[in-house]
Amino acid sequence: MSAVGKSANIFWQECPVGKLDRQKLLKQKGCVVWITGLSGSGKSTLACTLGRELHSRGKLAYVLDGDNLRHGLNKDLGFSAEDRAENIRRVGEVAKLFADAGLICIASLISPYRKDRDSCRSILPDLSFIEVFMNMPLDLCEARDPKGLYKLARAGKIKGFTGIDDPYEPPLNCEIEIQEEENGVCPSPCAMAGQVVGYLEEKGFLQV
Amino acid sequence: MSAVGKSANIFWQECPVGKLDRQKLLKQKGCVVWITGLSGSGKSTLACTLGRELHSRGKLAYVLDGDNLRHGLNKDLGFSAEDRAENIRRVGEVAKLFADAGLICIASLISPYRKDRDSCRSILPDLSFIEVFMNMPLDLCEARDPKGLYKLARAGKIKGFTGIDDPYEPPLNCEIEIQEEENGVCPSPCAMAGQVVGYLEEKGFLQV
Repeated sequence: MSAVGKSANIFWQECPVGKLDRQKLLKQKGCVVWITGLSGSGKSTLACTLGRELHSRGKLAYVLDGDNLRHGLNKDLGFSAEDRAENIRRVGEVAKLFADAGLICIASLISPYRKDRDSCRSILPDLSFIEVFMNMPLDLCEARDPKGLYKLARAGKIKGFTGIDDPYEPPLNCEIEIQEEENGVCPSPCAMAGQVVGYLEEKGFLQV
Repeated sequence: MSAVGKSANIFWQECPVGKLDRQKLLKQKGCVVWITGLSGSGKSTLACTLGRELHSRGKLAYVLDGDNLRHGLNKDLGFSAEDRAENIRRVGEVAKLFADAGLICIASLISPYRKDRDSCRSILPDLSFIEVFMNMPLDLCEARDPKGLYKLARAGKIKGFTGIDDPYEPPLNCEIEIQEEENGVCPSPCAMAGQVVGYLEEKGFLQV
């Protein structure tokens, strides 16, 4: 036990069972799959399909959905620039805990700004933050508009909507990019999940 | 998918793999073991020993330590009454996520006020919030003073310290109470952990 951080009165408690022990129990490596992209780009679909695919392989995954967390942990936050950053910061911290617990944590958030995503990456151990960029054209996302939000944003009823009157900053060095096939067809949910599972397998996350 | 809550623009995403599926995979039931008590009452010791004991039985547990979280998720919070309440609220929300993920989540926080603990209980499914009260006399905790905090509080260098110049409200209906034996001897870490494991076993949390 030692005193660290800003206050000399907050200690750090180390427990005898650590991440490696939990990973051995689960036969997998804890990590964060961070899915970023425009509203309507398929983040939630990928998150759920990936969660199901991993579960079918006997792996423990858990989805942190940005919208869902706004009903609980982040219900005190709005959509100001500051609150959005805090929203992402908290999800990043919780994702880190899940990865430390040994789970494959699937975070699904628009997370439009590079610096917020990079902050989340920076608090995780090397290589265990896997950024997945849903690289879908705006017009496709807007045509889908599964929640009717683009319509509201175009009508001026939602301000600061990513892609309409607020920027989306694409990742510069993401681990995985999901995009339309050459013929302009979107990959199926299973194909998208397969791409991520392939990466996790290749990098050794699905075994210890 | 449906719109809920305060804002019509925040949706709820339901995934095909749910808590029951994860519990089946883990062969256990997700829950929160919430350890409350004075500084020096043995919360962290119990949390770690319980974590080890569960791990040795092949169960997946994860410790949320109040102090540790103040270095990450809750690093923006201080010790005002408002910040303390928010600290506990967030830990409760994260514990809920871990329980939903199927883990036995062990939360270890002084959490001195009944209403804050009861709020955490209220967001969890029935029976899955297990409050453990470390019922140790103040003079014993103060004699132990593992972090030297009582000394600082008595010297007036820490204000609002639970047990000294801020109240601790004992639980009225906790599931488990850890106390001195009749001869005034403290139970050993293993005995304390055994008491909790016995409860979890009896209530069926260690199987599905």
